[in-house]
Amino acid sequence: MVIAEVSVIPMGTNTASASQYVARAVRVLRQQKIVKYQLTAMGTQLEGKLDEVFEAAKKMHESVFGEDVNRVITNITIDDRRDKELTMEYKVQSVMSKI
Amino acid sequence: MVIAEVSVIPMGTNTASASQYVARAVRVLRQQKIVKYQLTAMGTQLEGKLDEVFEAAKKMHESVFGEDVNRVITNITIDDRRDKELTMEYKVQSVMSKI
Amino acid sequence: MVIAEVSVIPMGTNTASASQYVARAVRVLRQQKIVKYQLTAMGTQLEGKLDEVFEAAKKMHESVFGEDVNRVITNITIDDRRDKELTMEYKVQSVMSKI
Amino acid sequence: MVIAEVSVIPMGTNTASASQYVARAVRVLRQQKIVKYQLTAMGTQLEGKLDEVFEAAKKMHESVFGEDVNRVITNITIDDRRDKELTMEYKVQSVMSKI
Repeated sequence: MVIAEVSVIPMGTNTASASQYVARAVRVLRQQKIVKYQLTAMGTQLEGKLDEVFEAAKKMHESVFGEDVNRVITNITIDDRRDKELTMEYKVQSVMSKI
Repeated sequence: MVIAEVSVIPMGTNTASASQYVARAVRVLRQQKIVKYQLTAMGTQLEGKLDEVFEAAKKMHESVFGEDVNRVITNITIDDRRDKELTMEYKVQSVMSKI
Repeated sequence: MVIAEVSVIPMGTNTASASQYVARAVRVLRQQKIVKYQLTAMGTQLEGKLDEVFEAAKKMHESVFGEDVNRVITNITIDDRRDKELTMEYKVQSVMSKI
Repeated sequence: MVIAEVSVIPMGTNTASASQYVARAVRVLRQQKIVKYQLTAMGTQLEGKLDEVFEAAKKMHESVFGEDVNRVITNITIDDRRDKELTMEYKVQSVMSKI
């Protein structure tokens, strides 16, 4: 299992708002049941197997393009730990317990 | 108001676990009442004025160093929108309403 | 063609030095002739087709794991523009000409 | 000394081209002699003291705003190593020597 964060930024859209384009990428995730996800204010966090997460990220990136968008900048951060099973919840709890 | 995400990574710590070092950075935020924050699985999200957020991010970065840590890689993403008041909650709701 | 930047960070390695682990990821790129690449001080920049770049990034990520490394944090930024052919050189020249 | 990478993305600009906006940020660096910098295809890399680099990054971010831009997303990665003097050149050479 890896935990990842994906953020998509459309360029040249004539509006400073990004939510409708981010919604396209989140819809990709809603239409599958493989990768778990959590929308946040700065990106969408994913939890799944490495290959699945890469596949989902690629589809999210692709979904943002359209008639009105011909440039997309996508950032993907992958946290892959193999001596221990990571989950999104565990990572947050682990820090909370040490504060 | 800007929304930001800060992640700190200690290097050469002899353990694959990062939570105790991330906890140092979150403690910095708990000890102040200026910048609002939210811990997530992939970083800590901040909400505040640009200068305050920069100041908080710098202190978070600094807090990770210690006897056992002499290299820290910090990533900061700042989303600064000036035609509209952004909040963490508004950003998430705005996407959710369009899915 | 997309331009991308990939950075790999090994965790729990007992040394603050990362170069030997980054070298593993760059070796992956040297052993193929599909994706063009350029090593920089903060990451490796790639130029190629979207699928090829994703494939290369995944292999770079995988290459860092080993007996001494069981956690890797990989950051990938993809700049994908479809109304114009981007190259690494063009992007730099385009900014330089406007300074 | 820290090494950093700063990338600025203007939103809602009506053009998929970013170079004129990135040029504003690079001009900020050209007008000072404190922080060393190197433009790349995916961001501008900085070398200097931590405070100076933060200051330069903040000015770069601010410079992108204008009549035509009211939202800027800036990403800053800071690599801060204190047991050894890092330079941009040293980091690249160190990896090259191990490939």
